[in-house]
Formats: sequence, C-alpha cells, structure tokens
Amino acid sequence: MIAAGDDLAGLIVVAAGGPQVWQTGDILVVAQKVVSKAEGRTVDLTGVDPSPRALELAAATGKDSRLVELILQESREVVRTRPGLIVVEDTRGFICANAGIDRSNIEQHGDDDETVALLPLDPDASAAEIRRRVLTLTGADIGVIINDSHGRAFREGTVGVAIGLSGTPALWDRRGDADLTGYTLQHTVIAIGDEIAAAASLLMGPAAEAIPAVIVRGLLLPAGESSARELQRPRSMDLFR
Amino acid sequence: MIAAGDDLAGLIVVAAGGPQVWQTGDILVVAQKVVSKAEGRTVDLTGVDPSPRALELAAATGKDSRLVELILQESREVVRTRPGLIVVEDTRGFICANAGIDRSNIEQHGDDDETVALLPLDPDASAAEIRRRVLTLTGADIGVIINDSHGRAFREGTVGVAIGLSGTPALWDRRGDADLTGYTLQHTVIAIGDEIAAAASLLMGPAAEAIPAVIVRGLLLPAGESSARELQRPRSMDLFR
Repeated sequence: MIAAGDDLAGLIVVAAGGPQVWQTGDILVVAQKVVSKAEGRTVDLTGVDPSPRALELAAATGKDSRLVELILQESREVVRTRPGLIVVEDTRGFICANAGIDRSNIEQHGDDDETVALLPLDPDASAAEIRRRVLTLTGADIGVIINDSHGRAFREGTVGVAIGLSGTPALWDRRGDADLTGYTLQHTVIAIGDEIAAAASLLMGPAAEAIPAVIVRGLLLPAGESSARELQRPRSMDLFR
Repeated sequence: MIAAGDDLAGLIVVAAGGPQVWQTGDILVVAQKVVSKAEGRTVDLTGVDPSPRALELAAATGKDSRLVELILQESREVVRTRPGLIVVEDTRGFICANAGIDRSNIEQHGDDDETVALLPLDPDASAAEIRRRVLTLTGADIGVIINDSHGRAFREGTVGVAIGLSGTPALWDRRGDADLTGYTLQHTVIAIGDEIAAAASLLMGPAAEAIPAVIVRGLLLPAGESSARELQRPRSMDLFR
C-alpha cells in the first residue's frame, strides 16, 4: 500500500527487479491511484463541508453530498447528470464521471473507510517526475503514462485511458502515410497513448493496486514530447456537449 | 491480401505456426478489415447511385456522395455531422463515424482505388464462425474478438474496440467484489472486450492488414457467451445523443 510521500518510482524500480531491468525506450504505465496516494491527493470525507450547490446536486443524483462537493471543486463544468452519475469536465480538461474521484483501495478500513483519492493535480507533471526519477535510478530514458479507467459516452463499461504522459506520444498521426496497397491514409490518427493505457489496464485488473505498474517493451513509436491534453478534444470540435 | 471467400480462420491458423500452436483459452483478435474482405463486404463506389438525401448530406459535409449513400444504407440514424464527418448509429447499433466504412487496404490500386469495405453484417456471428473453424482445425476452444478502430466523443484519435465477440466476455462486472482493503467495489464494470481489442490494435498498427490477427494468451477471464451488443449503451441510458 502506497502512502503520501512514498518514492513511488523507486519502489517500482525495485519491484520490477532492480535498475538493471530497465531499458531506454521502455514505457512504464502507472495506475493513477498509486500516483495520487504518493502525492497525498487523498481526502477524508468526514472533514468535507458541502456547499448549497453540492447539497442540491447530491439530492438530484442520490450521491454523498461531501463527495459531490469534492467533485465540484475538481471540475470546471458539470456536463451531464442522472441518478448515481455526475459527468464533468474536470480541472485538467477530462470529460469523466465524478471528476475521477474514487474510493477503492485507499486505506485499510474496507467499507467503513471514508477516504477518497483525487486525480493528480497535473498528471503530465507526475509522469515527467516519475520519468526523471527512473532515469536517475536506472540510467534508462523511458516513457511514462499515468492511466485511469474512464467510461465512454456511447459504450458500456470502463477502459484504461492515459491521463498523463511523458516521453511517449499521446497521438500517432499517420495521415499521409501509404497503406499496403499504396493508398494514402486520410483520417488515421491513433490514440496510441490510450491504447497503451488500455493494454496495461488489462494486466492491472480492476483493483489497480495489486498490479499498479506495467512495463511495455518493444513498441516502435515516434519519439518526442507529448501531453495528455492532446487527447482532449477541443471544445470547438465537440459535437456532443 | 485477403479476398472474398478466403478461409480466413484457416489462413490465420497456418500463419500462426499451425494447429499445434493453439490452446484452449486463447483469445484471437481479428481486424475487421480482413473479416469484411473474406465475407465479400466490399463495394466499388463507381457502381453506387446516391439518393437525394445522400447528395444533400454530401454537400453539407464535403464527402463523396456515393460513400454517403453507403453510410446511410448502413445506418439506423445520423447522430451528428460536421464538415468531413458523419457520426451515425449503424445497423449493428454502434455509434461511429461513417458507419465504419473504410477505404484503405482494399485492392491493389492505391489512391486510384474506389473500393470500400463495409463492416460485417453480424460481427458476433463472424466471430462465432471463426471460433468454430479454429476449433475444427486445431481442437482448441478459443475466444474470438473482431476489432475495429473507432473515434470517441470527447477524446482525440481512434482506439481499437470490439465489434464482435464469441467465447470471451464483453464486460467484466466486478461490482460486489472486495478490493485489497476489503472495500466493496461499487461501480466497476470493465469493458474487457474493448481493452483486449485496444491491446491487439496496438500490435496491429494503423494498417491492420500487415498484422491482421493477434493471439492473446494467459488472461484469466470468466467464461461464458457474450455479444458486442453488451458494449452498446442502451438509448435510455444515453446522456449525449
């Protein structure tokens, strides 16, 4: 169990087998939950005082008003609500349920626990910090992705997505490349960061604390810096809000 | 290059190294494009006569009116449009761009090619047929997923998703399970079929004909039948249309 202030990257390097295991070009995917905990981004609901707006939205959705207060604090805009669900644009720009706030795997108190985890303040910066630390500890210049499980507008269930990246691309623009027949690809921009996040999520399983980190090796990706913001559709191109 | 009538499952069994390679419990992910081609689901645009509605929608979006005619034939409803984009609910129930119709990697004529591939008529049935054929050829009872690349409402880029399944779950409902601390998971339904599809898409790359099939081994998943329809959000729960 990760606690606030833990050297998360250091623990992952050791757990993976030590510094000699790591190779430049590896991509380390780390579950949001452990990043949030290491960064102290947890809140005990017993100390949260809900605003009138939170009380109103809690009544409308049947959710805990203290949790709703945190959701509002972590959001720019409430996008949609129905009983049991509040979809927001969070302060980082993600359209997601509950501003990504989650109760599972926080403290050791099971169903009596009232502590929740917020998303990292700046997941790209979290990824960059883990990347720097792994480079210091191992000499390997890796890519880092922070992943989380998000719902989708038109599909059931959650999938792993990238909420922070460093040293590995968010998008892979193949427009203009030729396919096998010589046809020029017209529309192919792959959300490669999200596909890597989903693949890692598959290995992490639903309680992403048991396996909170996955190393992806052997992908041949274009180099360069990126940001999870590249995965956020600009408001001007949003057809569904 | 796959042609109409090809024994796709037979070709994949051989390409993977023969019948002895396959194990019960493997999950075979096959790219939609090769399934469509093997099933003869290709259309030469030069023979398509656009309806007045297709001409109107083509003018509004700047798209080829013959392609728009096929998109309308393959759809239940036009959900959103903007220049260059038509988002529909297709005849199979998927919310996707262009009813999943794609031009790349069809024939050997590069940019002069006017042939497009439609989605399989019933991708669950396509998956079941490939599964039966692999069982016959190898004795292994595998799961099969047909994957395709879809855009998302609020995120940039495409990701692999499952459009047809047989013998492997679409969703994994973990509600009621305990996490590491004993906390009972409240909301965790994982779109495991989509995560597998995305992981395979990562290996297939953008032109999913070079590597049109991926075998996933070692995942411990609940058994049972499923359908890609389980991944489609019911209209009554849709907050965004």
